[in-house]
Amino acid sequence: MTTALPPGVSASEMDRAVEDFTAALGPAAVLTSEEDLREFRDPYAYVGWDEFIASAVVVPDTVEAVQEVVRIANRRRVPLWTFGQGRNNTYGGPAPRVRGSVLVNLRQMNRVLEVSEELAYALVEPGVRFFDLHDHLRAGGHRLWPSIPDIGWGSVVGNTLEYGRGYTPYGDHAAAVCGMEVVLPNGDLLRTGMGAMTRSGCWQAYRWGYGPSVDGLFMQSNFGIVTKMGVWLMPQPEVYLSCFAKFEDDATVEPLVDALRRLMLDGTIRNYPLLAQGVGVGEQEGEVGADNRWAMRFALYGPEEVVHAQYRVAEAALTAIPGVEVEKRWYAGDDLGAVTMHDDKVQCGIPGMELMDRFMEPYGEHTGHLDFSPVSQHTGREVVKVIELMRSLYGRHGIPYIAGLIMSPRSVLHISTSFYDTTDEAQTSSAYDAYAELVTGMAAEGYGLYRTNLRYMDLVAEQYDFNDHALRRFNETIKDALDPNGVLSPGKQGIWPRSMRQAR
Amino acid sequence: MTTALPPGVSASEMDRAVEDFTAALGPAAVLTSEEDLREFRDPYAYVGWDEFIASAVVVPDTVEAVQEVVRIANRRRVPLWTFGQGRNNTYGGPAPRVRGSVLVNLRQMNRVLEVSEELAYALVEPGVRFFDLHDHLRAGGHRLWPSIPDIGWGSVVGNTLEYGRGYTPYGDHAAAVCGMEVVLPNGDLLRTGMGAMTRSGCWQAYRWGYGPSVDGLFMQSNFGIVTKMGVWLMPQPEVYLSCFAKFEDDATVEPLVDALRRLMLDGTIRNYPLLAQGVGVGEQEGEVGADNRWAMRFALYGPEEVVHAQYRVAEAALTAIPGVEVEKRWYAGDDLGAVTMHDDKVQCGIPGMELMDRFMEPYGEHTGHLDFSPVSQHTGREVVKVIELMRSLYGRHGIPYIAGLIMSPRSVLHISTSFYDTTDEAQTSSAYDAYAELVTGMAAEGYGLYRTNLRYMDLVAEQYDFNDHALRRFNETIKDALDPNGVLSPGKQGIWPRSMRQAR
Repeated sequence: MTTALPPGVSASEMDRAVEDFTAALGPAAVLTSEEDLREFRDPYAYVGWDEFIASAVVVPDTVEAVQEVVRIANRRRVPLWTFGQGRNNTYGGPAPRVRGSVLVNLRQMNRVLEVSEELAYALVEPGVRFFDLHDHLRAGGHRLWPSIPDIGWGSVVGNTLEYGRGYTPYGDHAAAVCGMEVVLPNGDLLRTGMGAMTRSGCWQAYRWGYGPSVDGLFMQSNFGIVTKMGVWLMPQPEVYLSCFAKFEDDATVEPLVDALRRLMLDGTIRNYPLLAQGVGVGEQEGEVGADNRWAMRFALYGPEEVVHAQYRVAEAALTAIPGVEVEKRWYAGDDLGAVTMHDDKVQCGIPGMELMDRFMEPYGEHTGHLDFSPVSQHTGREVVKVIELMRSLYGRHGIPYIAGLIMSPRSVLHISTSFYDTTDEAQTSSAYDAYAELVTGMAAEGYGLYRTNLRYMDLVAEQYDFNDHALRRFNETIKDALDPNGVLSPGKQGIWPRSMRQAR
Repeated sequence: MTTALPPGVSASEMDRAVEDFTAALGPAAVLTSEEDLREFRDPYAYVGWDEFIASAVVVPDTVEAVQEVVRIANRRRVPLWTFGQGRNNTYGGPAPRVRGSVLVNLRQMNRVLEVSEELAYALVEPGVRFFDLHDHLRAGGHRLWPSIPDIGWGSVVGNTLEYGRGYTPYGDHAAAVCGMEVVLPNGDLLRTGMGAMTRSGCWQAYRWGYGPSVDGLFMQSNFGIVTKMGVWLMPQPEVYLSCFAKFEDDATVEPLVDALRRLMLDGTIRNYPLLAQGVGVGEQEGEVGADNRWAMRFALYGPEEVVHAQYRVAEAALTAIPGVEVEKRWYAGDDLGAVTMHDDKVQCGIPGMELMDRFMEPYGEHTGHLDFSPVSQHTGREVVKVIELMRSLYGRHGIPYIAGLIMSPRSVLHISTSFYDTTDEAQTSSAYDAYAELVTGMAAEGYGLYRTNLRYMDLVAEQYDFNDHALRRFNETIKDALDPNGVLSPGKQGIWPRSMRQAR
């Protein structure tokens, strides 16, 4: 018995699809009860909203089962929506863009299939969490560190495919991918890169392959379901140094950002630093939003004498800026037992849930938050301009500016957050309305988002306007060729199959 | 008057196409004389062969002209074949895969459109040579180094799109791309990544964009013509240290390769080293193939005290292997006037032609060579196995093993070369026949090529066999969707449009 139906699908058609899924996967792998479905709604939407709810959840545990699910979806013309863990709640968690979609829940595909100690990579299934990968590496005695985001419960594959970030030198997760296996919208099975040669030993070692490189097509996309992915890992260094540049004056942001860029471009700092105000970076504890001091967190790794030299260079460059103090904590690479603080854990691949706890403080279990994440150039000038713009736009809605800036050598992700009580419809709506104005307000100044919540996928796509939205039209051409029935995650990132984009 | 005609195109149809091109571009930009066409043949094929020759050459000098060329090709149903400079002679130079194709010669689109000193990138047109980029950076007083291959006359874009390599920390050129502009097979114009937002300032700063990342689709491909490309550059370091680990005993290869991998994975060595025997790496002069000693070339860059520490770590690791000696040459980053030797030039972005001269020694101006370039894991065990396999396979044909191994942290490109006299048909054929056996012989052991000559594009693609050549079938699906008339570079890397793949 299903309640939410996708557009154009009758209750009896959905029943037949569910029968087919049940026949293929077994009854335990097909969930349709109201109680089961409630678990997979958009967790940070107002509790009374039901725009992004599913009709059923299927839980395949093999590649063949995923292929069969896709074939049934084509036969029955029901839309699917895939997630590895579905834990990125601010972007919608596991919930589907199209109401009534069947969720493809990959949490049971949770094996680490291979680890190469020598070549520092792992081959993982999409349900593998950062916790699982970390634990697997420890249990196997591997001297390899994963790159992890702030909260450890997410899927390695899911996070990576959405351009998620971590904080080691491999923290640009999409850049650390090497080789994928993908179930295509027609149920066919693809391996990318050197995986296209059955006997190759280089699937996770060499990324480009022969001919076009297609891995990027499966990121933030609805062109396939990734069932295996190679991820490059960091070898355990001799020493690990967790560092913090602290300052109080907003005027220090500009020179600090410029100094950091030079240190990153010259290879002195190889990880992905975080610059934050009001989220207590560099502090053991601290209430979200209560702290107006700034901290820039970064790390050094390597042979001890190299790290010593790098630290001296970084310290000299940063403390040359008036008002900046640098603190550090040394760790031996082979003894992470002493690492307990969140800031130090995330820079050496030890996953945790402590940031989740802190982010749930404002309204307890009913806390919701919307992350608004534009991209800027990594220059002091641009970073200051974006901070001021965002403060001003948030300020119009009476929302405080709370942000963590993930620093790359040439770009910055400005991850800002607004909190609300998900049991308070007016307050939730107010945060959502502000978000829409932030999207268009920032776009008017030339700043686009790197990802977004279900509700804003079309609005954000609309801002990517070059040549009458040529990139979206290009993506739609590929979508129609690969997925003529439009079964895979329609609407994801604003990419709709032909049958569903008439209205635009 | 054209001589070579593409399949299914009559002389009068080709004449009309040439008339259209001439009307659109002007007569000076359309070449059809036998003399003009001779310049664009496969330069290392036997002089009497005419399999890969063109019917005409068009020389657009604007994006709009490229779009018009593509539209005419669709209207007249003539195949195009694009090159930036067409200088990678071992892979066919500017010559087309399909006889009678119209060459799209982009040498006139040779502007460096933008350089960002702060963010260390350039935006270039496809005709920009490594010489041009280097000279532009010098002339502008920029403290930025390009990554360059051994020979400076090639196109930055062309080399990069073919997964070409250089030897600085940005030496994996495809990984240093940020943002493209592409003329699609229907003449439409696409900008990738943040370029999809007209007003964005991050086109060359942030690579992933919103939604799928499509840049990889345009590498080693026939899905579009790249008309602009962003390329990340290396900031001039305080010091540059050019280093050589030398040894004589083949048995040293295995431990040296393993030691190098560890140094690359831990970030001590950030550039792309070269391991070679018999090509005189590390020597001022030397006849190709005459030297049986081994040398592994690498470089360090950065603040002086960091480079000192890194050198001590690298030297200790390498000289711990019996028989290995390490030599080095120090340079100040702001004074490259002292850099004159090829090995030192290519590691700091100074392009030259000296390697070309040396590669033409065996048979003077008639020298041809075929590069055979499989990929292996970067482990001592695998590198030794591949060297022995290649020696054995070359040996069966009486060809000496001459190779340069480009080392990445996890993979190795084994670039081997066989020389012949292009005026001697028997000798040339013999080299070509050996090549085909090398392709299948190495594939039988699980080793694929990263690129290849026109004549072997299909044979190499055939080896990428996973799931009934799923990757090729996937690429063909995209090809048909983007290029239904099959006008762009049919057959490139074994990807044929629907109308031309019936025979397979």
